Amino acid sequence: MTTLSEIQKKLIQHKLDAYIITRNNMFLGQDVLPEENLLCRLTGFTGSAGKLIVFRDHACLLVDGRYDIQARAQINPRQIEVFCTRDSLGSWIQNNIKNACRFAYNPWCHSTAEVDFWKRVLTEHEFVEIPADFPAVPLSSNEAEIFELDERFAGITADEKISYLTQFCVDHRLDAYFIGECDCVSWLLNLRSRLLEDTPILRAFALVPAGGNVSLFINDLNKLETELDNWRGKTIGLSFNRCPKKVQLLLKEKRIRYVNIPNPVVDWKAVKNPVEISGFKAAHRRDGVAVCRFLHWLENNGQTTDELGVVAKLHEFRAMSENYYSESFATIAGFGPNGAIVHYQPTPETNRKPEAGSLLLLDSGAQYFDGTTDITRTVAVGEPSQEMIDSYTEVLKAHIAAASALLPPETPGLVPDTLSRAALWRYGKDYAHGTGHGVGHFLNVHEGPQSLSLKSLAPLKAGMVTSVEPGYYQEGVFGVRIENLYLIEETVVNEKSMLKFVPLTMVPLERRLINKSLLTTAEIDWVNGYHQQVWATLQDLAPADIIAWLKEATRPI
Amino acid sequence: MTTLSEIQKKLIQHKLDAYIITRNNMFLGQDVLPEENLLCRLTGFTGSAGKLIVFRDHACLLVDGRYDIQARAQINPRQIEVFCTRDSLGSWIQNNIKNACRFAYNPWCHSTAEVDFWKRVLTEHEFVEIPADFPAVPLSSNEAEIFELDERFAGITADEKISYLTQFCVDHRLDAYFIGECDCVSWLLNLRSRLLEDTPILRAFALVPAGGNVSLFINDLNKLETELDNWRGKTIGLSFNRCPKKVQLLLKEKRIRYVNIPNPVVDWKAVKNPVEISGFKAAHRRDGVAVCRFLHWLENNGQTTDELGVVAKLHEFRAMSENYYSESFATIAGFGPNGAIVHYQPTPETNRKPEAGSLLLLDSGAQYFDGTTDITRTVAVGEPSQEMIDSYTEVLKAHIAAASALLPPETPGLVPDTLSRAALWRYGKDYAHGTGHGVGHFLNVHEGPQSLSLKSLAPLKAGMVTSVEPGYYQEGVFGVRIENLYLIEETVVNEKSMLKFVPLTMVPLERRLINKSLLTTAEIDWVNGYHQQVWATLQDLAPADIIAWLKEATRPI
Repeated sequence: MTTLSEIQKKLIQHKLDAYIITRNNMFLGQDVLPEENLLCRLTGFTGSAGKLIVFRDHACLLVDGRYDIQARAQINPRQIEVFCTRDSLGSWIQNNIKNACRFAYNPWCHSTAEVDFWKRVLTEHEFVEIPADFPAVPLSSNEAEIFELDERFAGITADEKISYLTQFCVDHRLDAYFIGECDCVSWLLNLRSRLLEDTPILRAFALVPAGGNVSLFINDLNKLETELDNWRGKTIGLSFNRCPKKVQLLLKEKRIRYVNIPNPVVDWKAVKNPVEISGFKAAHRRDGVAVCRFLHWLENNGQTTDELGVVAKLHEFRAMSENYYSESFATIAGFGPNGAIVHYQPTPETNRKPEAGSLLLLDSGAQYFDGTTDITRTVAVGEPSQEMIDSYTEVLKAHIAAASALLPPETPGLVPDTLSRAALWRYGKDYAHGTGHGVGHFLNVHEGPQSLSLKSLAPLKAGMVTSVEPGYYQEGVFGVRIENLYLIEETVVNEKSMLKFVPLTMVPLERRLINKSLLTTAEIDWVNGYHQQVWATLQDLAPADIIAWLKEATRPI
Repeated sequence: MTTLSEIQKKLIQHKLDAYIITRNNMFLGQDVLPEENLLCRLTGFTGSAGKLIVFRDHACLLVDGRYDIQARAQINPRQIEVFCTRDSLGSWIQNNIKNACRFAYNPWCHSTAEVDFWKRVLTEHEFVEIPADFPAVPLSSNEAEIFELDERFAGITADEKISYLTQFCVDHRLDAYFIGECDCVSWLLNLRSRLLEDTPILRAFALVPAGGNVSLFINDLNKLETELDNWRGKTIGLSFNRCPKKVQLLLKEKRIRYVNIPNPVVDWKAVKNPVEISGFKAAHRRDGVAVCRFLHWLENNGQTTDELGVVAKLHEFRAMSENYYSESFATIAGFGPNGAIVHYQPTPETNRKPEAGSLLLLDSGAQYFDGTTDITRTVAVGEPSQEMIDSYTEVLKAHIAAASALLPPETPGLVPDTLSRAALWRYGKDYAHGTGHGVGHFLNVHEGPQSLSLKSLAPLKAGMVTSVEPGYYQEGVFGVRIENLYLIEETVVNEKSMLKFVPLTMVPLERRLINKSLLTTAEIDWVNGYHQQVWATLQDLAPADIIAWLKEATRPI
């Protein structure tokens, strides 16, 4: 059992002032297994984001606004001081640590770019690798079953994808490219793993030589060190933003030249190929049927079920679908006030039943071998209030504002975010999350580089998949969110090439929550057009017992 | 007469490789008098933006896309090579000059930040001040009449404004603040000058001690050097972005400590005080009457006048107004295809008469002692085509999209830019300029920090004035732009504080160019509300001969 005081003893012993610990494992930013969560083991803090600095005689836990209350409840205040901040770790140190310090850090758990930033900006401090006897996040154990994603789902063979990257090496005069992003490794090699519950990603690094003989590093990092011995004097490309500092240090140590160059696989993966696109569409048809079956069931059982019942029943319908693999994230199902908690997940302790006239906010998705889904529907159970109806309609207007936009190619993601949000600003409303995220193909349900959010300059391109999911949350009362996934396609308007959002998600909206008098003609047309498409897409696939329900749910408003 | 070859001889003589020349004078980015335009004198290039690098045996002129054709037509290709680029000077050098060079630059004509960027990033090159015998942009001569802006227009005495800045010095432990932005100096001291034709700005630097005894540097820069001798060992604040490198070098030379700190006057000036706001409104009422008189005149004389006639007649009506001082920029008046040239100004050579069914694009404004105006109206002369009508209506929708927006306080200017542009994207249309700019109070008609443009992160605040001016330009055929100035005001929606745009400009839109069937109910309401306000505001001020015209022009569509 590792403890803070053990670390503090070692700090003194090694003449160090502090040890920086984050929630990262060596796959910076990917899911973290419980045994990898050193931050939680040391502090008891279970939040999804936090940074700990252990000093010789105290410790500081930095969390953002979401986790302020939770952190203070979970930690021991005699050992740890909690700071609520939006600063990066480097900026926080710059603003708060006045005495020159010697910081230790784990070079596997911080990107090269992050450490280089500390060293460049925080010149009064020193940053050194942790000594070997320090407690550290264990190197990831990835022993679960690995499997190949069939070409009929992946669309392009691993060999062909690798040939893009070897060509990239040739074009950039690199002898090899090192990939530190495991979702890119998974995509490039058409490999997946059963290690993580909702994300079939293979956690691994890869070294792709210009000659094409790929080396994969899954469990044995000694293998990486040994492999690199062969590359002395050669030039290897890597992305400083997404590679552990340790990799750069190894390259340096082994006298390998390295070039910081963005990983091109990130963009290749984001623009889906024709087979991935067909797969996404097929997966969404099946997912649409499953969610419709659930909504039909809910209509008859809404008053008697509870949140955990909702989660179980929805899972039951999805799990019957062809090519079903897993959920794509833990289902968010909140009745009434629980719907206003953006990242709520029901537990036996919080589990609610609907009161008369509740909204259910249901955000869920699945991994199918041919594509990944993510959908939020807000539905009325019982008689909704006028305020609920109007709020739903306003969020619907915000959804349509982005989803119906035509955008020039390469428009940054902040633009549709702005369009969506502006529709709610008219009512003095807003939401404290992004408007949408990219989606991987049988990979992460959140995938970059594109993002519909206020600060995102990453360009949107035809072939990308994105969610659109504005919301409105009235704390303690109800929450509304409406989320579809869209494929970005090129279209021609007035002889100009533009981008449009083509819906992938095929599930009716909640017509009992639409106040038609708040919608413009164009918005009404959008809703009717979408419903017409849902009906046309699902009518031949839906089981007989929901056809009448589906017909009714998709008739013109 | 200075020539390129003269400079090239001196380069060799002084062991320099190149001389960097821009269109800047010592008031970086302010209007440049003809005698200050060394770039033009050396090259013949008359565009408003360009950078020249004179090497020993050739010269490179860097221009942006607007000036590519013009530059190639105006320069001597045997002496100068033209490069069309969007790069900054520093980035262009980085990407194009491979051999290590010793560059000379004029430290009066580049900001401290710019020169520091070169030195930090372009480490293989050297950057040195020009030797004394080099041809240089002359130090600005500001001999024109200086006058005080009366407190009944300025609203706050110079003493009170200075006291804000002396307090700022105290708060930031500065012994003085040096203002390198002459519009800030003019505002702070309530001083103006008749030097420039359309901008009553006083071109001067100011040193404001914490004690409050301001030193002004207008013509005699020796005075600046002498004054600084008194400040050895003291601390002076200045903004590296907006101060000539020379000032920082002088501070260094004289062993004065300096701190790079944004000039707070920029924000104070941008948020108008109550007297400035009343003045803006009054000026816009008078300007509205003048423009309405012109439009009424045009209705009867449109077929027989020409662009220069339009400019003269509009000037005649404006010049009769109370508190009129000058135009705020050279009027843009373009019939037919000339309207499609964004920065067109008619000359005897280009002067057009309307053909049957022309549009006139008229962008103009005035400086009044109590406020500054800037308005664009596009009007039909004769019978417009359906394409002209639809294009006007689409631009009107874009205008309303920004002007009717409600935005959270501190929203960046890129947001309303996006809202406006997105309305035109629906038709596959766009415009190659910003959606709006800040406006000074009897100062520059273009004033920051706020800007409605795709990359502007500067926050919008209550009390700021901004234009909204989307457009559409069909090359060789016609142009449409609709511009009003707006005051940004706070309003409360759903108990949330929001910003709204309150129109200052009071001139009817062109109803003959509105295709009502393209407008939503909300857009029609906006037009009718605006026209109702124009009528209510002007009906008692307008001369009798235009009342019937005004009534007709503002009745509901």
